[in-house]
Amino acid sequence: MNFKEAINSIEPGSDINYQKAVERQSMLTKPAGALGFLEELSCQFSAISDEFPPKVPESPVVCVFASDHGVLEEGITPWPQEVTTQMVANFLAGGAAINAIAKQVGAKVAVIDIGVAGDTSGFAGVIDKKIRAGTDNLARRPAMSVSEAERAIQAGFDVAMSMIDAGCDMLVIGDMGIGNTTPSAALISWYTRSGVEETTGRGTGIDDDRMLVKIKAIKSALERLANEKLSDPVHVLASIGGLEIAGMVGLILAGSFRRIPVVLDGVIADAAAVVSFQLNQKVRSFLFAGHLSQEPGAQKSLNYLGLKPILTLDLRLGEGTGACLSIPIIQSAVRTLVEMATFDSAGVSEG
Amino acid sequence: MNFKEAINSIEPGSDINYQKAVERQSMLTKPAGALGFLEELSCQFSAISDEFPPKVPESPVVCVFASDHGVLEEGITPWPQEVTTQMVANFLAGGAAINAIAKQVGAKVAVIDIGVAGDTSGFAGVIDKKIRAGTDNLARRPAMSVSEAERAIQAGFDVAMSMIDAGCDMLVIGDMGIGNTTPSAALISWYTRSGVEETTGRGTGIDDDRMLVKIKAIKSALERLANEKLSDPVHVLASIGGLEIAGMVGLILAGSFRRIPVVLDGVIADAAAVVSFQLNQKVRSFLFAGHLSQEPGAQKSLNYLGLKPILTLDLRLGEGTGACLSIPIIQSAVRTLVEMATFDSAGVSEG
Repeated sequence: MNFKEAINSIEPGSDINYQKAVERQSMLTKPAGALGFLEELSCQFSAISDEFPPKVPESPVVCVFASDHGVLEEGITPWPQEVTTQMVANFLAGGAAINAIAKQVGAKVAVIDIGVAGDTSGFAGVIDKKIRAGTDNLARRPAMSVSEAERAIQAGFDVAMSMIDAGCDMLVIGDMGIGNTTPSAALISWYTRSGVEETTGRGTGIDDDRMLVKIKAIKSALERLANEKLSDPVHVLASIGGLEIAGMVGLILAGSFRRIPVVLDGVIADAAAVVSFQLNQKVRSFLFAGHLSQEPGAQKSLNYLGLKPILTLDLRLGEGTGACLSIPIIQSAVRTLVEMATFDSAGVSEG
Repeated sequence: MNFKEAINSIEPGSDINYQKAVERQSMLTKPAGALGFLEELSCQFSAISDEFPPKVPESPVVCVFASDHGVLEEGITPWPQEVTTQMVANFLAGGAAINAIAKQVGAKVAVIDIGVAGDTSGFAGVIDKKIRAGTDNLARRPAMSVSEAERAIQAGFDVAMSMIDAGCDMLVIGDMGIGNTTPSAALISWYTRSGVEETTGRGTGIDDDRMLVKIKAIKSALERLANEKLSDPVHVLASIGGLEIAGMVGLILAGSFRRIPVVLDGVIADAAAVVSFQLNQKVRSFLFAGHLSQEPGAQKSLNYLGLKPILTLDLRLGEGTGACLSIPIIQSAVRTLVEMATFDSAGVSEG
């Protein structure tokens, strides 16, 4: 299925199921509202389910989209590009943070090469969807062609559709790509109409000099984009985005089309959510903000989307780590809704 | 073993293991500090372990201490006292929020009647440690005798020691007791030297009139206590505390003595932590603040203890719900420390 068809077929969340959840929450054996944000999460989750009460999601998959960024040639980070390839190997060997956390919370990890500069073809277990070996330098020219952006979105869409077909009931977004906070900040600035200084962070922990270089690169990209007079979000994504961000857009579209919850991670996933929102605002119903990244663009994106983060743990790693940590909380929210006794059924007096 | 012996035998966390964890964090395949609060948690956890690297805790037990409060006769809450007994039955039947959440995160739930007014003797599965059938009205006279407070602390201590002997490697505090935010606010005000208005919250969600009654009751208790000129924390606890709070103090002492992490829940557990801290400040090393309750006394307590909450989900239910939700995060923190590859071992270049 082409992702463009899916865009127009996304149905919003069900108000009826949302209201059923609100009503059920008021009958459960606890003071009204005492489960706080968990109650909101359970209502949102109910709204995107086909049935009420919903099923507790049991098969989350973290999809880690890996790709490289031509903007590295500007000197935006001290980390060498080969780290992306090396970390893909680390994910596949089970040695990264996302592996440890996913194991703890019972999630599978899928690693997708959607545009890594290095050769991963010999890496056992990698999902090979490479569109090109890294983007071009977005500070000076479009990061990729529109056709490449579309193929990357389609690749992410296809991966997510396959996961769902195989039983995945919760899509969790992860990323790997040295330099990828740069296109993320660019996209977030563009769509949330925020100054570059307000969306650009220190990524892996760059110093003040690199920070100036990074801000300058993003400003150049946005000036170029303004001159290009683009309005189609896929064209904007091609111009100032990244291949992993495009893949995530595809995943978000697939999750929304199939009514599967999508858990956002940090600022890379947030940027993808902002782009997806341009394609169809109804994706909003299916998004859970796993955590608030330390990158300033994260808060900008979540405000723009009207999403409240589940966790605030001062993370800035990506890979899907913060999203993955939020899984047991979303599951617990649904499980309390589904499994708790009511005042009536438990014979508990009300206040 | 008598809890008083344990108080004097608590050893602080190990600075050596803490430093080993800091050092290992710097070698793992991620930018320095990118795992944020998880890194701090992993270091604290290492400090209280006998070995390095520590073991990921796999057998958490939520100990829900249930008791009643004579101060209800002041009219501090619209909920009838029998709800405590009814909720104990609900816990044992698996119908409460804590059951759903504990199931989700793989924790066992133990329910301790340490002072419920109603009869729970026929309830299958309850741990019967009843000291007395609810406290006296702390607004007018001491909530219990010093001997009763000591026996309640000993009961909590004994329960926790048994759990640890049976393999529990993480103690999680839960509570049930209609009216128990009142003694909690009183204890927190007393020890953190905060005004009653600053520590008293709406508990289950009381209205403005009840709020005035509640504040007045707590002020009366504190005035009485000031006249009693008590300094021994157990005497203070007896005067303005509750039986479940005393049980939690015993649990905290046992955990600290046996070097087992103790996860605090909301304001009731926070009050118990503040009292335990008076008995021996070294308990601080073993405490994890599972979440920040909406009750204002929670923030006061955590500030006083120098603890940072793991979660902020606007919960105000108790039962151990917020503490339980933090378990996978503490486990993930330890697991990343223990299982992640280093830059060297994974062949990843450094920035």
